[in-house]
Amino acid sequence: MLWVIRESMIVIGIDPGLARLGYGVLRGDRGSVVPVCYGCLETRARTRSGERLLEIYTGLASLFDRYPPDGIAVEKLFFSKNVTSAMGVSEVRGIVLLAAEQRGIPVFEYTPNQVKQAVTGSGRADKVQVQQMITRLLRLSEVPQPDDAADALSIALCHIHVMR
Amino acid sequence: MLWVIRESMIVIGIDPGLARLGYGVLRGDRGSVVPVCYGCLETRARTRSGERLLEIYTGLASLFDRYPPDGIAVEKLFFSKNVTSAMGVSEVRGIVLLAAEQRGIPVFEYTPNQVKQAVTGSGRADKVQVQQMITRLLRLSEVPQPDDAADALSIALCHIHVMR
Repeated sequence: MLWVIRESMIVIGIDPGLARLGYGVLRGDRGSVVPVCYGCLETRARTRSGERLLEIYTGLASLFDRYPPDGIAVEKLFFSKNVTSAMGVSEVRGIVLLAAEQRGIPVFEYTPNQVKQAVTGSGRADKVQVQQMITRLLRLSEVPQPDDAADALSIALCHIHVMR
Repeated sequence: MLWVIRESMIVIGIDPGLARLGYGVLRGDRGSVVPVCYGCLETRARTRSGERLLEIYTGLASLFDRYPPDGIAVEKLFFSKNVTSAMGVSEVRGIVLLAAEQRGIPVFEYTPNQVKQAVTGSGRADKVQVQQMITRLLRLSEVPQPDDAADALSIALCHIHVMR
């Protein structure tokens, strides 16, 4: 498969989670990357899982329709010591993949190390270094909050770098 | 919450999986349980995850629309030694919960022991005993195939027993 960089591309990075799903929308132009928006979809802990998943699905649908992306970038999950939490995140991941597939949007996966490497130049960078780097690269006035949104922006930025 | 047994109820048991999702549709009347249909939604291993999840979502939508259930019963996942497989199953579980929620269908969860106990009277029954018991209770001419469909029928039967 051949991926051609167009003049301008919209990439949405997603950090999936049931309580908080972070998203970051970036526009990659030939020479620059412009942040379009970022934030979180939040669901309440006391709500039933099905209802929370439907809220996330609806939120993603709005996001994808408002900023039709050329690609979605998500973190590759390898394993987790906390299996229960890995299972919860996977349920949300399933919803993300479904919503993307329904719109024919390709999904790209990156490991945490690939994201760190692409953003900071080192696969060993810590969370704070990654956050400072994306703040600088995206010319934001402050570190994006919450962490989930910052992570989502990092993944989106990683994808744009890889595509170049 | 108070659940009143109506004259007749349709229950769909689901055994989620990416390669094979087993389903079993049962109609519970006041004194009897009648098998309506059972089977599997299968997806090909070489297909992208997103495409497989969309196929499952579409298949579930057809199933729920054809046999509008009063409830869906799924197995409760606690943990798994194989985290990668638990994550795959969880992605499908997310799709099941979403499709049910979109139609306002309540979802009930049972542990494997609860299913064995409800179907055979013993939480220690093995797979073969459970399969023989549902074959007898549902008056089927042979053990339902494949295993995923048999498991789905067991979960549905468990739910009907619990509701009584």
